[in-house]
This record gives sequence, C-alpha cells and structure tokens, in this order.
Amino acid sequence: MRYLLTFSYDGTLFYGYQKQKNKRTVQEEIEKVLSKINNEFTAISASGRTDAHVHAINQKAHFDSSKEYNLDRLKHSMNKMLPNDIFIKNIERVNDTFHARFDVIKKEYVYKINIGEYDPFSREYIYQYNWNLNVEKMREAINYLKGTHNFKSVTKTIKEEKDYVRTIYDAKINVKDDIIIISFVGSGFMRYMVRNMVGLLIAVGEEKIKPIDIVDILNKEDRIFAKKTAPAEGLYLTNVYYE
Amino acid sequence: MRYLLTFSYDGTLFYGYQKQKNKRTVQEEIEKVLSKINNEFTAISASGRTDAHVHAINQKAHFDSSKEYNLDRLKHSMNKMLPNDIFIKNIERVNDTFHARFDVIKKEYVYKINIGEYDPFSREYIYQYNWNLNVEKMREAINYLKGTHNFKSVTKTIKEEKDYVRTIYDAKINVKDDIIIISFVGSGFMRYMVRNMVGLLIAVGEEKIKPIDIVDILNKEDRIFAKKTAPAEGLYLTNVYYE
Repeated sequence: MRYLLTFSYDGTLFYGYQKQKNKRTVQEEIEKVLSKINNEFTAISASGRTDAHVHAINQKAHFDSSKEYNLDRLKHSMNKMLPNDIFIKNIERVNDTFHARFDVIKKEYVYKINIGEYDPFSREYIYQYNWNLNVEKMREAINYLKGTHNFKSVTKTIKEEKDYVRTIYDAKINVKDDIIIISFVGSGFMRYMVRNMVGLLIAVGEEKIKPIDIVDILNKEDRIFAKKTAPAEGLYLTNVYYE
Repeated sequence: MRYLLTFSYDGTLFYGYQKQKNKRTVQEEIEKVLSKINNEFTAISASGRTDAHVHAINQKAHFDSSKEYNLDRLKHSMNKMLPNDIFIKNIERVNDTFHARFDVIKKEYVYKINIGEYDPFSREYIYQYNWNLNVEKMREAINYLKGTHNFKSVTKTIKEEKDYVRTIYDAKINVKDDIIIISFVGSGFMRYMVRNMVGLLIAVGEEKIKPIDIVDILNKEDRIFAKKTAPAEGLYLTNVYYE
C-alpha cells in the first residue's frame, strides 16, 4: 500500500532534504521514524529536494508499507517521534502507481525579503536586505521570467540534466509592510533556480540591470551571466500540485 | 554621559539576560561589544532580567561613557558587531540621574499560546498547547489578577524580597486565528510571575479550577497553591515605560 505524506519543516538546522552521510537531513529523520514504526527500513520518495536551510510548508513524499494504518494514529505517532522542526500535516492512501516526484504537475516556491528594520526573530526565515529596492522595476522584470524558457543561466549545470527548459506559469511580487514576497508557480525548478531568479530580481531592484536584461541573461544560457544567488533562509517550498 | 539602549533579542539561544559564568547571555554579548568600541570595560544596567529562552521586543538598558557619540553610527557599529539574535533598535542620551531599572514606572509582558495546528517555525516563539482551552473563562479569570495584590503565590520566594505586592494595571486576552495572546501591564513583575499567572489561566481554561479560585490562590500567599509554570518560549518582554 502506498501512502502520501504532507509535511512542513523549518530548514534552519538541516543540511537540506536529501539524505547525506553524517549530516542531519529531513529525509533521514522521517525514514528513521517510519522504519521504527514499521519495524523495517522504510524509504520515502519526495516531490524533490530542498537545499540546506531552505524551508518547506507543504512538502510531499510517498512511501510503501504492507500495513493498513489508522492514518490519524500514524500521524500522531510520527509527530510524537519526530524532532520538533518537522511536522506531518497529513497522511493519505494513494494509488500504487502514484509517484510523489514523477507525478508533480507544478510546484510553488515563495521567497521573502525584509527591506525594513532588522528583526532578530526572522533571521533564519526572511532574507534581510538593508538597501533600497525598486519594487516596481522588479514587478516589470518578473514578467520576463514567466512562460517557457531555457533556464540554464539560473541553475547549476549538471551532466544528468539534458534539458533546462521549464515553464513558469505564474510569478508575482506582493509587498506586506516591509516584506517583499516573491512567488513562482512552475512545472519544475532546478537547483538554485528560484534563488538565482530572485538574485536577478534583486539586481533589477538595485537598478544594476534593467528589467529587459532578464531576457538577454536567459538567452545566454550560461550561469556566468546571472547575478548573486539569494540566500537560503528566505526560500520556502510552499505547494506541490498533482493531477 | 549616560545613554539608553532599546533592544530586542530572540531568547532561544540565551541562558537569560543576566551575565553568568560560562553561559551565553544577552548582557555579556552587549557589554563585550560596547567595551570593544569604548576600549574599556563598559557595564550596562537593564530594566530587569529575563529568564533563559524568554524573548524581548523592547528591553532597555543604560550605560555610561565619557565619549560623545554619533548615535546613528554607534547603533550601526553595535549591530554589526553583535550576534544576529540581538538587535539595537535605538540609542539616546539620557539625564545622568536616569536609571533603567529604578525609574521604571510600568512594564508590559506578552505570552503567546497556539491552540491550533503545530507550526514547526514557531516552536521557540509560541507555546504549543494541544488541548481545548475555554477562553471565555480565562478572560473572566484574568480580571482577578488586575489591581494591587500580594503575588507571593505566583513567584519564587527569595530572602531579598521584602514585599511581594505589585500592581497589575491592565491584563487582557486577545485571540488571533488560533493564537491566544495574553498581555499584562504592571508596576513590576517578579521571577516567574507572568509564567505562573499564565499557568493559572491555563488551569482555568482547562476547567480544572474556576476563575474565582484565582482570588483564593493569591490570598494563600504560597507558591504551593499555584499551578504549572508556563514554558519560557511563549514569553516576551514587550515594553518598559518611564516617566
């Protein structure tokens, strides 16, 4: 039987989602707990990785088990056993052919920037930016990221990636008090892609580049033309959508 | 010359405000930075202590220096040198006779309780309470804490304290989404006093005691009759008032 977990985590104290030797990761913490409950090693398959210190509000992962659980009780047990920076929000039965990664149709990421007074309580949750940003120019620029493009300029080039083409269905900027909230909904996001797109938007906001320059940078298909990678603490995987 | 600092800190990683040997404290971090800037040991005197893991939004402390500072520049330097869980919000010149502790006329503390779904991002900032609380009964009960009373039942008895009488000028409960926000404005708060008053209110909310029982418990003048001390992470020193 296949089960789907919906969970949130505060990425601050994790070296990312994916298991790594001798590092504290989200995947390992959840697999440890599930394996203890099932009395046998139980692997989970997530919708995708998140990098070190990146947060998740609604990450998804499936796992298989021969047991039929009381889902409420399983959720309760898992949360009791998990460290307090991971929380299982929901567990549901899914079809045996469902796959948490391959069946993703779109994902949403949110990036938060504080341009107001520094708040020590948000130091791991919002990127603190102490200079002015021209938000209107950033709003103009974000439109050039929407649509289907080759995003090789804003990701890490890796041998396994044959195709850097992705579609951004929606991208927008909201401002609430002094917090700039940038959100992207897309078919898929490659490594550092959101943080590099935010880096471009910050360069636009700083008026170091023009909004239209985004088009040229994407067309270069080379990371060397992008700007700084925005830091991890501002980034949240907020939603994963399936059929 | 005497200067007054207004500062916030995330109490999570501190063993409280007051300096202690071999422990990370807010006072020591600020004194280290000021002493470096002044090139001589510079002590600060705060409005009062906060316990381990308790937060502050507007703590106040004064210090003396023979130097006349550019206050903006001093604030900037201090924030650059301080760890990122302390933030200096304001520095002002005050009269030589001003004292950050003795001149306090009232203080405000806020306590936050989440009765909704657990949020891993708030684990160090809001007390997570997973059962029902009768907020109407708590609102009735908090009125019995207002006014001038002997608060010996809700504090730690210590030899130096001759007088456990304090005045609570205002106390109220607001609910925002699933967060219960309890605030107290009073002439002074002794050790664990807010957390023990919140403990009483929680006992009322659980319907283990009646609102009116608060009166009896205060009249006993003995800590043994109080209830659980609410945990540190929900507590914030929010304001300190002077003439």
